[in-house]
Amino acid sequence: MARSRVSLSTGTSKGLVLDLIRTLGPISRTDLAAETGLTAATMSNVVRQLLDEGLIHETGLGRPNGGRPVVLLEVDTSARYAVGLQLGGESITYVVVNLRGAVVGRLRAPGVGASEPTAMVAGLVEQIRVILLGLGIDEQLVVGIGVVAPGPVDIARGMVFGPAHMEAWKDVPLRDLIAEATGLPVVFDNDATAAALGDFWGGATEGARAHATVYMGLGVGAGVLIDGTVFRGASSNSAEIGHIVIATDASGRALVAEDVADPTAVVRTAHENPDEVTRLGLTGDDFTQFTAIAKASARGDAFATGLLEASARHLATAVTSLANLFDLDSITLAGPAFAIAGAIYLRVIDAQVNADFFARSRHGIRVRLSPQLQDAAAVGAATLVLQSELAPRTMGLAGPSD
Amino acid sequence: MARSRVSLSTGTSKGLVLDLIRTLGPISRTDLAAETGLTAATMSNVVRQLLDEGLIHETGLGRPNGGRPVVLLEVDTSARYAVGLQLGGESITYVVVNLRGAVVGRLRAPGVGASEPTAMVAGLVEQIRVILLGLGIDEQLVVGIGVVAPGPVDIARGMVFGPAHMEAWKDVPLRDLIAEATGLPVVFDNDATAAALGDFWGGATEGARAHATVYMGLGVGAGVLIDGTVFRGASSNSAEIGHIVIATDASGRALVAEDVADPTAVVRTAHENPDEVTRLGLTGDDFTQFTAIAKASARGDAFATGLLEASARHLATAVTSLANLFDLDSITLAGPAFAIAGAIYLRVIDAQVNADFFARSRHGIRVRLSPQLQDAAAVGAATLVLQSELAPRTMGLAGPSD
Repeated sequence: MARSRVSLSTGTSKGLVLDLIRTLGPISRTDLAAETGLTAATMSNVVRQLLDEGLIHETGLGRPNGGRPVVLLEVDTSARYAVGLQLGGESITYVVVNLRGAVVGRLRAPGVGASEPTAMVAGLVEQIRVILLGLGIDEQLVVGIGVVAPGPVDIARGMVFGPAHMEAWKDVPLRDLIAEATGLPVVFDNDATAAALGDFWGGATEGARAHATVYMGLGVGAGVLIDGTVFRGASSNSAEIGHIVIATDASGRALVAEDVADPTAVVRTAHENPDEVTRLGLTGDDFTQFTAIAKASARGDAFATGLLEASARHLATAVTSLANLFDLDSITLAGPAFAIAGAIYLRVIDAQVNADFFARSRHGIRVRLSPQLQDAAAVGAATLVLQSELAPRTMGLAGPSD
Repeated sequence: MARSRVSLSTGTSKGLVLDLIRTLGPISRTDLAAETGLTAATMSNVVRQLLDEGLIHETGLGRPNGGRPVVLLEVDTSARYAVGLQLGGESITYVVVNLRGAVVGRLRAPGVGASEPTAMVAGLVEQIRVILLGLGIDEQLVVGIGVVAPGPVDIARGMVFGPAHMEAWKDVPLRDLIAEATGLPVVFDNDATAAALGDFWGGATEGARAHATVYMGLGVGAGVLIDGTVFRGASSNSAEIGHIVIATDASGRALVAEDVADPTAVVRTAHENPDEVTRLGLTGDDFTQFTAIAKASARGDAFATGLLEASARHLATAVTSLANLFDLDSITLAGPAFAIAGAIYLRVIDAQVNADFFARSRHGIRVRLSPQLQDAAAVGAATLVLQSELAPRTMGLAGPSD
């Protein structure tokens, strides 16, 4: 899988124009010039380059403002693709998106677990190759791979620092290993941040001024978008709601959301009651057991429902803190855990957050399941690499509204 | 106190140029043109206006780049002034700042307490008049008044929504009443947000990517600056750390920082022990009693020190959540309560936050007392009105780095 032969040079004007055609097209050269402030000569030059590289094409004549007919431009949706890879202890999700950010292929595989990373990278790369082959996509058309994992992450060095259930991956130069094995540009980020971007591209954050995507795999995190821009803080490890205090235990010890709310904690709590564990037949890794608990709850099992509701209430406390500190007006729930047990979490979190948050006299908070419940982080990962390779001016920003 | 006769029209170019001269001056016209990208003709025109209005003057010749001598421009520090007014249950602070944002006068008065707001506004206005008279400042040179109060606030309507100890002020059109009584522009904001701006102008946030000023009067809040820009969220009620859950009580009820950490809570906790209240002679309003507890602690009193340390530990939990969610690298403590008991809070918060925060493997968090411990919010209020009247392009932003 060699680097695409077509040079996708990342000049600012070109990225900007491509991004506008992608989000506003079909659009005329005149309207593009008006949107960008570029001179007619520069615009003509940039459009020519994009046509030559096959990234856009002319769609014929249109009358966008009701005037005389003009030639309209739009992106060639299948001119380039990007791969998004979400690495989690519970699952690995691969997606392939086209130049518009729409998903054209997806695959879910068992999670990273205790796998040895260096060897596993070869497997990931092979899997990407097989998916592209199955989709009939020429590897030359892939602009890069976006890889996301649970925080804390080191974006500068492209590696994860944890969490506990991915201990073997700590301090492994993941981005560089994947880049080396594929010859493709690789962008690395926090899974929750990517999920927020995925929700943005999927339209789920529309109308929000301050939005958070709460992302739950085996652990839980969040990504925040302010007016469509990713909130990163000092080191892109912001919005880590799994690590904020939400209660104290009987002996006065502080409990964080990760201790009592995430799927790992749900399973641990279940095992405090061995009879119920036996009755429900809980075995296997944590995510398998969490899935079994969710299924039992869906059948009406009171013990299982009690576990999930307690988890949801604790998580709601953390989400309320998030809402109070960022003054949120929109929240989505995304990730593998919500894909399995989203309804119960949505009900509890929506009710508790809207009853308790500080600025409730000023505005409400819209709480919803992500329309890309399982895939938001992988889709966000793929759009990150589309952005950074094709429209670098908006790197770190969230997309069209910028 | 009539509106200044000199029209401070708020055109973008003029505000921009004045702001640059204020922060970079003495500076030449050539360097200004380079900084702004304005044409020589526009620059010449704008500088002429500023000279005519007496906001800047020529300082004579300089050789800023070692070349031939050129005329340098700098602001006329005493050409205009702004008033900052911090309204709190515990105290009212008035400051007057000059065109550089430096404090030229200050006054502290007893807090708002249960005062009736409409009548009190007349008192505030009279007090401002007296201060300006004492400083020998012509009221015509005052560009406006910045007023700040504890959240939640309604910035659009210019009024407070609480807190409990300012119940009488709820839903009073404060901004409009003060504007009417003075004939001056009035800007209204959250006290903690203003304190963060005050710290920015005072240089305390230098080098920070993600900074929070924790502001404590009778209650506690925070203001966040990201790369020098105020973080506002959906309704400018962000970073409300007094209202996030930090523990649960013996019966499992959620406790927020306001329940157990702020000065009101410290006094309430003290009164659970009537013998100690008698021994320490605690009487009067909450802030007077908090002050007495801080003084007793400074004398080595174990009970008083225990109260403050418990409060500091609870507050540290809330501040750690703030640090984890915003991925902070800098924190200052400001406000009347820290002016009285800052040392003990600084010690506990610095130790606990740096031991516990999530991204500690990536970077440290600098925790310090604000250099404007008592005045940060009032100074921030005054700089808000300077910004909005003189350099509106940066309204809502924090100043020179933008």
